[in-house]
Amino acid sequence: MVKVLLNGCCGKMGRVIVESAKDFPNITIVGGIDKFKCDDLKFEIFENASLVNIDYDVLIDFSRPEALNDLLDLSIESKKPIIICSTGFTEEQLDLIKEQSKVIPIFKSANMSLGINLINSLLKKIVPVLYGNYDIEIIEKHHNQKVDSPSGTALLLADTIKDSIKEETKYTYGRSGESKREKNEIGIHAVRGGTIVGEHDVIFAGASEVIELSHSAASREVFAVGALKAAEYMNNVTEAGIYDMEDVLGI
Amino acid sequence: MVKVLLNGCCGKMGRVIVESAKDFPNITIVGGIDKFKCDDLKFEIFENASLVNIDYDVLIDFSRPEALNDLLDLSIESKKPIIICSTGFTEEQLDLIKEQSKVIPIFKSANMSLGINLINSLLKKIVPVLYGNYDIEIIEKHHNQKVDSPSGTALLLADTIKDSIKEETKYTYGRSGESKREKNEIGIHAVRGGTIVGEHDVIFAGASEVIELSHSAASREVFAVGALKAAEYMNNVTEAGIYDMEDVLGI
Amino acid sequence: MVKVLLNGCCGKMGRVIVESAKDFPNITIVGGIDKFKCDDLKFEIFENASLVNIDYDVLIDFSRPEALNDLLDLSIESKKPIIICSTGFTEEQLDLIKEQSKVIPIFKSANMSLGINLINSLLKKIVPVLYGNYDIEIIEKHHNQKVDSPSGTALLLADTIKDSIKEETKYTYGRSGESKREKNEIGIHAVRGGTIVGEHDVIFAGASEVIELSHSAASREVFAVGALKAAEYMNNVTEAGIYDMEDVLGI
Amino acid sequence: MVKVLLNGCCGKMGRVIVESAKDFPNITIVGGIDKFKCDDLKFEIFENASLVNIDYDVLIDFSRPEALNDLLDLSIESKKPIIICSTGFTEEQLDLIKEQSKVIPIFKSANMSLGINLINSLLKKIVPVLYGNYDIEIIEKHHNQKVDSPSGTALLLADTIKDSIKEETKYTYGRSGESKREKNEIGIHAVRGGTIVGEHDVIFAGASEVIELSHSAASREVFAVGALKAAEYMNNVTEAGIYDMEDVLGI
Repeated sequence: MVKVLLNGCCGKMGRVIVESAKDFPNITIVGGIDKFKCDDLKFEIFENASLVNIDYDVLIDFSRPEALNDLLDLSIESKKPIIICSTGFTEEQLDLIKEQSKVIPIFKSANMSLGINLINSLLKKIVPVLYGNYDIEIIEKHHNQKVDSPSGTALLLADTIKDSIKEETKYTYGRSGESKREKNEIGIHAVRGGTIVGEHDVIFAGASEVIELSHSAASREVFAVGALKAAEYMNNVTEAGIYDMEDVLGI
Repeated sequence: MVKVLLNGCCGKMGRVIVESAKDFPNITIVGGIDKFKCDDLKFEIFENASLVNIDYDVLIDFSRPEALNDLLDLSIESKKPIIICSTGFTEEQLDLIKEQSKVIPIFKSANMSLGINLINSLLKKIVPVLYGNYDIEIIEKHHNQKVDSPSGTALLLADTIKDSIKEETKYTYGRSGESKREKNEIGIHAVRGGTIVGEHDVIFAGASEVIELSHSAASREVFAVGALKAAEYMNNVTEAGIYDMEDVLGI
Repeated sequence: MVKVLLNGCCGKMGRVIVESAKDFPNITIVGGIDKFKCDDLKFEIFENASLVNIDYDVLIDFSRPEALNDLLDLSIESKKPIIICSTGFTEEQLDLIKEQSKVIPIFKSANMSLGINLINSLLKKIVPVLYGNYDIEIIEKHHNQKVDSPSGTALLLADTIKDSIKEETKYTYGRSGESKREKNEIGIHAVRGGTIVGEHDVIFAGASEVIELSHSAASREVFAVGALKAAEYMNNVTEAGIYDMEDVLGI
Repeated sequence: MVKVLLNGCCGKMGRVIVESAKDFPNITIVGGIDKFKCDDLKFEIFENASLVNIDYDVLIDFSRPEALNDLLDLSIESKKPIIICSTGFTEEQLDLIKEQSKVIPIFKSANMSLGINLINSLLKKIVPVLYGNYDIEIIEKHHNQKVDSPSGTALLLADTIKDSIKEETKYTYGRSGESKREKNEIGIHAVRGGTIVGEHDVIFAGASEVIELSHSAASREVFAVGALKAAEYMNNVTEAGIYDMEDVLGI
């Protein structure tokens, strides 16, 4: 049984993790940390990390960047792995993570979805084989309230593709007018509409043949499952270092 | 039995029509017109329209705009419908078509695919119902040698959508950077890769719901079938006028 | 402003309707009916229909069939339209609905999704045009806990297709072994996996051409939106009778 | 420059290979073998393998199983690799291939498409990781004249999935009636319609997440490109043995 301590347990993502954990027979959430009170959860909640006085195996943080320093202090004191799912850290905080990863095992992934990480990992294998004979394009779809285009995930996938190609490549964010596709273009198309949670489609178009790797997320549950899978994995990790979802996937 | 006279019979599209006609039990190609000789077709071929001396029911033209005037002369003389699938006419030629349509039945469609015309026709019905609650975006995919973006067909569909909305709308040909989708945007995304013949996907994204109308063409045969369907239809038309694929579809 | 009375307001679907109603500026939920208490909703809740003593415009019922008779009594007394989204009625109850529809406007639809009803309505228009030249198949996808296959919605669409074809047609629920597709088959394929909420794809495959009408639902919100759209529509209906989503769509 | 000798050069597939070879600057077809005469190809054609008297690097066979023995004799005499794309061999012929592969390099693949082999190869990597948390289903689409269901390629992919799972699995070829999906089912759905050349879609449906690997072939060119890629690869192979498309892909 993995005893999870959950930072941000009263927030939206925290509650999704609590809900998803019910499908993980090996995981029990033994406590939470949240400065905002909530009294409907079935475990003890501490107002901040320094007050935690219970035993746990893995700390999951899915909240906001402000909490980081306290959480790292707690992890170093408890010598337990920490899973960082929050984003938006400052340079200083990223340096701190790197430094503390010499002392404890730290999990940190650009995207918490297992599926996206799987596809990202496959891209590293297949792009070097396919590039040259297949043109590569990405379509991503998100809800109409999303501010940034293309999505961070689309750029993550595109960067992986770029890094897997020896030739210089360039991103094309849509097309209009007269201009033939150049071989080293990667088209990235950002569709926006309705309440679409997130879809990513990597297209390899060759001679009379199209190969596609696609991912579709229906809710935040995807990220909760990723965090809990990471918790199961990190529970068995003893060596200090930075770990990410590709370690969890093991491919 | 519909006796078809085929202009441009020795060209690429002409040959596809000859091949596709074998699947139309009601249609027989009784003659061709082509200034380039070819001797492997099983019907008589005339070097130009003025030399035609056989009886026919419908003239199909799938060639280049230069032939138009001779073909219209022949049609008026024979009092038979003409199906114009060629494109790239001058303003003068378009005027001539309009004028002659007062004398004979003329078929002319911006796109010869039955499926695209069907979807275009459905858009007229559903866009007024859906707009406001659903965001509309178009994805089209074509081969990497296509010069223009977005495709003429994508613009045809977009224009139909625009014309079905009372509000002013604007086309967005891809997205990058920070900018939230505006309600009256129609996103049009041109994917280019490999040898893709032509795919068009109209997306209506609403509250937790996505509706899509999609069309995929696998070869030029699509346009041949459209021309032959038009021939069957026009064979029964006696009234002068301009006809298009929506008349053929009857919806 | 449409004043809605909501039966089943404390249940799962009731709460989704309460949530979705916030996006409808013209709608306000003025009261609820639920025998199970809940105290977190901002309107008065009556334990059963006979106790309702407030003014309202439209009654929405998204609960279980047992409530029907009381709800109809209330509607007839108040002379207000009722929107019946519950399912699983007995023959007697269905007869009662039909009888009472002579007195008041009753809305009842086999599926509450606007998108599915739209596609169903389009099928009536296009199947008579396409059948013969295009083979029709349906793919539906649902979560792995769904007991019935194919989905009721897939059968609704298939029945609409069948009714639009003059020839006798038959349903094929998957294929294995040696047997060529017959022209009058409608293939219906039930994919089951994960937590997929509901996808339906109607495929028209012709000569080098495929047309698809697709619908994807991401959550129960789809049905709530349908119920609220129906409420807006029924608020303006004064004539007794049975109404359904096609009336709402108006196509 | 790879000098290719092509058995079956006058047949349908042979001609597609001749056409596709024009896009391979490193490949030249120096001769053909075909008992059926054809005089429009620009290289010498021998009536059977025993008559071949020209120098070549790789022999491609894309014809019928009858030719095998003569082709193997020629290959052993010339000490050159042979690429066998024909199918339908007897047990004895399969034994012969195995035996001769001790003497010369022999390429033989269940499917000549690069894309399908790529997906098949990826399945070996990801199925062990995903199975248990994701349900796996396959949808394949082919033209309405195809006799066997599911396609050989769908079964190839399904067998790869089955072999990657420790648990006993079973194939389900469609669903109807009341029966919940069992965890160890692999659903295989054969859609038939129109002239669809071949589409295969492997679906991994998990918690709020769907991953898909898809392949779409638009024409036989796909198989010609595969054969020519294999020729490039085999030209550099000197060691006797059986090789397949995964060797060519190198992943």
